[in-house]
Amino acid sequence: MLARRVLHSAFLGKLRLFPEALSSVAARRSQTDASRRFNSPLTSDQLPRPAGICSMYRLPIQKDTQGLDVCFVGVPIDAGTSNRPGTRFGPRQIRTESVMVRTFNKETGAQPYQSLQVADVGDIYVTMYDIQRAAREIRASFTKLIANGCKTLAMGGDHFITYPILQAYKEKYGAIGLIHIDAHLDVSEHMNGCDITHGTTFRRAYDEGILDPSKVIQIGMRGSGYTPKDYEWPVSKVSPPYDPTGLTSLTAANLLFEMLCVLPGVKYSDVFV
Amino acid sequence: MLARRVLHSAFLGKLRLFPEALSSVAARRSQTDASRRFNSPLTSDQLPRPAGICSMYRLPIQKDTQGLDVCFVGVPIDAGTSNRPGTRFGPRQIRTESVMVRTFNKETGAQPYQSLQVADVGDIYVTMYDIQRAAREIRASFTKLIANGCKTLAMGGDHFITYPILQAYKEKYGAIGLIHIDAHLDVSEHMNGCDITHGTTFRRAYDEGILDPSKVIQIGMRGSGYTPKDYEWPVSKVSPPYDPTGLTSLTAANLLFEMLCVLPGVKYSDVFV
Amino acid sequence: MLARRVLHSAFLGKLRLFPEALSSVAARRSQTDASRRFNSPLTSDQLPRPAGICSMYRLPIQKDTQGLDVCFVGVPIDAGTSNRPGTRFGPRQIRTESVMVRTFNKETGAQPYQSLQVADVGDIYVTMYDIQRAAREIRASFTKLIANGCKTLAMGGDHFITYPILQAYKEKYGAIGLIHIDAHLDVSEHMNGCDITHGTTFRRAYDEGILDPSKVIQIGMRGSGYTPKDYEWPVSKVSPPYDPTGLTSLTAANLLFEMLCVLPGVKYSDVFV
Amino acid sequence: MLARRVLHSAFLGKLRLFPEALSSVAARRSQTDASRRFNSPLTSDQLPRPAGICSMYRLPIQKDTQGLDVCFVGVPIDAGTSNRPGTRFGPRQIRTESVMVRTFNKETGAQPYQSLQVADVGDIYVTMYDIQRAAREIRASFTKLIANGCKTLAMGGDHFITYPILQAYKEKYGAIGLIHIDAHLDVSEHMNGCDITHGTTFRRAYDEGILDPSKVIQIGMRGSGYTPKDYEWPVSKVSPPYDPTGLTSLTAANLLFEMLCVLPGVKYSDVFV
Amino acid sequence: MLARRVLHSAFLGKLRLFPEALSSVAARRSQTDASRRFNSPLTSDQLPRPAGICSMYRLPIQKDTQGLDVCFVGVPIDAGTSNRPGTRFGPRQIRTESVMVRTFNKETGAQPYQSLQVADVGDIYVTMYDIQRAAREIRASFTKLIANGCKTLAMGGDHFITYPILQAYKEKYGAIGLIHIDAHLDVSEHMNGCDITHGTTFRRAYDEGILDPSKVIQIGMRGSGYTPKDYEWPVSKVSPPYDPTGLTSLTAANLLFEMLCVLPGVKYSDVFV
Amino acid sequence: MLARRVLHSAFLGKLRLFPEALSSVAARRSQTDASRRFNSPLTSDQLPRPAGICSMYRLPIQKDTQGLDVCFVGVPIDAGTSNRPGTRFGPRQIRTESVMVRTFNKETGAQPYQSLQVADVGDIYVTMYDIQRAAREIRASFTKLIANGCKTLAMGGDHFITYPILQAYKEKYGAIGLIHIDAHLDVSEHMNGCDITHGTTFRRAYDEGILDPSKVIQIGMRGSGYTPKDYEWPVSKVSPPYDPTGLTSLTAANLLFEMLCVLPGVKYSDVFV
Repeated sequence: MLARRVLHSAFLGKLRLFPEALSSVAARRSQTDASRRFNSPLTSDQLPRPAGICSMYRLPIQKDTQGLDVCFVGVPIDAGTSNRPGTRFGPRQIRTESVMVRTFNKETGAQPYQSLQVADVGDIYVTMYDIQRAAREIRASFTKLIANGCKTLAMGGDHFITYPILQAYKEKYGAIGLIHIDAHLDVSEHMNGCDITHGTTFRRAYDEGILDPSKVIQIGMRGSGYTPKDYEWPVSKVSPPYDPTGLTSLTAANLLFEMLCVLPGVKYSDVFV
Repeated sequence: MLARRVLHSAFLGKLRLFPEALSSVAARRSQTDASRRFNSPLTSDQLPRPAGICSMYRLPIQKDTQGLDVCFVGVPIDAGTSNRPGTRFGPRQIRTESVMVRTFNKETGAQPYQSLQVADVGDIYVTMYDIQRAAREIRASFTKLIANGCKTLAMGGDHFITYPILQAYKEKYGAIGLIHIDAHLDVSEHMNGCDITHGTTFRRAYDEGILDPSKVIQIGMRGSGYTPKDYEWPVSKVSPPYDPTGLTSLTAANLLFEMLCVLPGVKYSDVFV
Repeated sequence: MLARRVLHSAFLGKLRLFPEALSSVAARRSQTDASRRFNSPLTSDQLPRPAGICSMYRLPIQKDTQGLDVCFVGVPIDAGTSNRPGTRFGPRQIRTESVMVRTFNKETGAQPYQSLQVADVGDIYVTMYDIQRAAREIRASFTKLIANGCKTLAMGGDHFITYPILQAYKEKYGAIGLIHIDAHLDVSEHMNGCDITHGTTFRRAYDEGILDPSKVIQIGMRGSGYTPKDYEWPVSKVSPPYDPTGLTSLTAANLLFEMLCVLPGVKYSDVFV
Repeated sequence: MLARRVLHSAFLGKLRLFPEALSSVAARRSQTDASRRFNSPLTSDQLPRPAGICSMYRLPIQKDTQGLDVCFVGVPIDAGTSNRPGTRFGPRQIRTESVMVRTFNKETGAQPYQSLQVADVGDIYVTMYDIQRAAREIRASFTKLIANGCKTLAMGGDHFITYPILQAYKEKYGAIGLIHIDAHLDVSEHMNGCDITHGTTFRRAYDEGILDPSKVIQIGMRGSGYTPKDYEWPVSKVSPPYDPTGLTSLTAANLLFEMLCVLPGVKYSDVFV
Repeated sequence: MLARRVLHSAFLGKLRLFPEALSSVAARRSQTDASRRFNSPLTSDQLPRPAGICSMYRLPIQKDTQGLDVCFVGVPIDAGTSNRPGTRFGPRQIRTESVMVRTFNKETGAQPYQSLQVADVGDIYVTMYDIQRAAREIRASFTKLIANGCKTLAMGGDHFITYPILQAYKEKYGAIGLIHIDAHLDVSEHMNGCDITHGTTFRRAYDEGILDPSKVIQIGMRGSGYTPKDYEWPVSKVSPPYDPTGLTSLTAANLLFEMLCVLPGVKYSDVFV
Repeated sequence: MLARRVLHSAFLGKLRLFPEALSSVAARRSQTDASRRFNSPLTSDQLPRPAGICSMYRLPIQKDTQGLDVCFVGVPIDAGTSNRPGTRFGPRQIRTESVMVRTFNKETGAQPYQSLQVADVGDIYVTMYDIQRAAREIRASFTKLIANGCKTLAMGGDHFITYPILQAYKEKYGAIGLIHIDAHLDVSEHMNGCDITHGTTFRRAYDEGILDPSKVIQIGMRGSGYTPKDYEWPVSKVSPPYDPTGLTSLTAANLLFEMLCVLPGVKYSDVFV
């Protein structure tokens, strides 16, 4: 609920994190609304939930972002994880559990699939054996995905992937804002002498001027640390091999729906306004 | 805690959902209190918890409801489930975990086993391969179970079983009230073109005049839906194959004890009044 | 190993179960070999195994069988199961584990993807709440899938689905042979008074003249039964909720590869001949 | 298969382990066959497998062995286990999985439920906090259970329970034979300075003259030991908390059926003779 | 959070539960601070988390408490448990999950490893087959561990171990105070006729004058009981065999860190004061 | 059993894989036998199995290989895995399950702990975020461990670790022989364009002249491949997160004991000769 409210305020402009994005989407949408037909997830009435190829929410699959306002994309890698690995299967399991999520946001009235063109573009190619190279591959893939103004809702994957994704966004939009929900700051200089890990993500981003510090919010910092100045990343379920009931992935699928619902341009049902 | 308070208020007459039931039990009980001996669950001192045939709370087992104020009864079917099946094992696993529940309600002072004659009547026969026929079988079994005024605390089973159970109650008591704790309204007209499913339960009940709308309360509605007018049933941990620690079944066993404790006629310890 | 040898002998013509099929494929293939380009699964070098939308073996997905020699197709239903349900998730989990299976059969030299046009056509629509209707839907879907001579490698789903699938094949090819690997005969007249269940499959098929008894082999019959004349279906690990390591599904994916490799028309590497 | 053949030979008299038992049963049975009606497990057609109170094979439950040739009885204790506990839940889980076992032994033709009066007498009371006292309680319970010549098929529980059970049998029948299927001899003098543990079972039995060494067979001894003279008990899957699929318990339920089938007095179907 | 605050207040002297301990530690610490070098857990930068022998927090291991202010010690026994066993593996799994806990308490500023000499002294020897003897062994081991004024942070094991541990503390410090966080009072006279079980712990302690009733606080009492005067111990995850994700053990490891942080003598970072 | 016999023949000189090692151990041992005292694992009588810090077989822990004939050492990394990660926890879980393995090899009579000085030297430091660097760290650590002639029994970790370990051995002993038990050859030129992965291990070793091809045996090659010339590595339980019962780790612990038992210099009990 907290996450929903924060995202709602932030994206809808109160924090004005993405004003450029807002106007660019608005401009494009005003031209196209009348003529466009939008993708929509398969409902359980169209095809029972246990059935069908598992794309995100069982949306159409396409190879690039042509014509899309928003895409779901997976980054299946866990090479930067310090304890339990397995988040390489994150995108796969989130897609599996996403069959439970429906199309209408009862709480806020948002109707994203009547407002934005959305599809699943699958997973990007990312080498699992060389984290430096993987970072370059992620950056290159996202640069391409967002070239036409499409927004990405990315599914990981461990936390280091945020760094090359931010690189791609900065290249297009300039220094950007960030809402970071986590238990740790992830601003370590190094981990085990390595530059790119799940605990050094935002140090790297800050060093390269990717973030506009006036628009960065970190929520949820807690737990034990090594020194008064330095916190880090906690164990998490809880990673698909540790999530036998799929509950964490279902939560991820629900949260991604909330994120979709607060993107600029989403229409709201009159009933709830 | 919320569930306990709602049940407490509702059953004890503030919402007056079952006034007829209240008086019929009271009448019968006044005649019999002096002469009756009540069943009681085996305590862990009488027989250690891992031991014994798993009836509900390790109460005596009997074949029908003769002489009972209340019975526990299982309806082991999941033919109406839209995603994860397995609730057919619900009664079995609730009984297994019920060995942890004791006889005295410390919070409210209720002493149900000194007030009501309770037993486990096992599971009803219900075909698993034909949902229409299963619904008829459930209705017939419950008609018989409640013929003598006995109350049922039923363990499912997926949500569709509520519909034929309500049919049986309506036949005896007329249109009835309902406290429905769920995440979805379950009032769909159809699912996959079928009349009887876990998502059409209360639409069917309403259509047949089973429910008195002035006495229906729906609690907990939330989540995403398909349209502004229509919500449905979410995945739940639920189902025994997805509940390896038995925690959900233990919760069910505890909740059933709370329901037992607020039935009309239950005596309370003076200490707590 | 036993299964591989049996399938190898049977399909390659020693048992001559499908002579018509053999010649029809041969005829079509001889015309097309030169000009066709075949689908091939993604290798782990093209895309790492944890990545990508999970189609069977990560083959291309298409909506019908146009141009195909063989298709993989899922029938996600478990409405006929007598004990543990969950096989409705069979196709999904087999696809998930199928990423481990490669393209070349080292034991026999078979190179199916250089011989046949293969794709994943997804899951058919099948109602989960009405087994009679589901049987009709399965028959209709398979009738359509095989109309152009395409072969199906079907992933279930519980055993009753074999009956409507056989109906579709009989309609096209006449009475057919069968290799049935199971622990029970599945020839009960009824189960719980129902005609279509996982234990009545071949009784129904026999009654309708679908099977050519001279070409039916039942392998693996064992276990306890109810009477000297009647055996049935055992519990199986089976079912995805009871298969947390995915081992059963991986076995299924490997067995399906073996079945693919012995289909008429598959070429063999010279090295192994 | 090995276990089945060994049991078959042994009990049917080739090893003549229980000649007295054989004749006593035979005598009693010859008098009663005409007039007796035998108990029989519920079949899945009488009540679907997921339904019903879980007695062993869903046989009738009775409190003592009056009128029985054979009883199933649980001894839910694991106080003697040296590594993983949890076998206290053995009887409960074996009963749960036993719903899969049918009434007719297809391999040998045995029809035990047309030959012997069998019931489930539940679990004996056994203290979990004091192993010496538990041993005395087990001995006393079995002395009572077998007083009328009834045979026991006991479900544990860890291996130490064999010792007090043998004490009871010796008291009635004199020194007895034993088929012991295990990985270790279980003849340690002490474990952690204690007399009664899962590793000292047969040392105690031997010391007290319970066993007739000429009729003792130990099968399956293997694994590593501490000294050339001493082996012990291995980890086993074990124990219900480590058996999430129920496979070990199902195996136990099947093996118990085989043991039932080779008891003296069991009739065989003509078809198989 | 509640637990943290209660512990914080209690140990820091507001409840004055351990004034003697406080002064004895203070006296010894004032003499030694300058010259002592403190143990510290391995950080994930010194050795990655999945690596290394699992001592508690990967602290140094030593055989006794010589030179220590505080020790971690395991008591791996579950012989007093009334339902699910397995807590004998508690110390092992808490150590395993403890690799996630860091050295600095961000919430309170506590820096225990710059204030106290801490080590892991392993597990005490405790017989698993005889609870009376086990209680004597636990008492003797703790008497020895605390002889030099060292404090113990003990990891169980089931609740009965508290009784012999309290015996050892009483012998050294006189009647003592207690903060007892639990769902039940654990003051039964007997369980199954036995004196020492997980439900009789504090009755035994009270009977022997171990506790100073004016300094005993019981927090969290809830659930159902047998009579208005008597409550007992609930099922708990609940035991390593029932905790496949390690979440309960990780919680235990975090709570033990909080307990370490509020011990007398712990220094606090200026930043947080 | 096959593995045991192969290892037995190979190490005892029939294949003469390690003649140098054999003589060097023999020389050193002849000087020291009289005066040396050997380490031995804790037996379950010295300390119950659930107790104690989990070193391998609960052997003494030491920081280097001084005075050792053989050491157990962990290499906790899975950065080269192509599908399921988690083998970084391999050494930890093998140690955990190793408490079940005893000291005497009943099958062959081997008494390794009366013949060789063995200890657990813990896990080496290995970076998890950079596989090239990790390979250098592994090589350096093993170079140091074997400098004094000590043999290593290494616990992984994924298959790529074999390559840097072989580098260290080659540096000391020259080109060496190898018994490779696997399902795949692991001789790919590259995987995802990377040199060092779990599928390129022996290609790298061969390229550098580490292996003496006349002394290399590959056993167990099977499964499907990509081309007639190229096989690879299969999914394995199969990795601790996928091995909830610990069975795979227990098998590993047993196999390591067999390997220990066939090392040059191990004495055999007369009873078995």
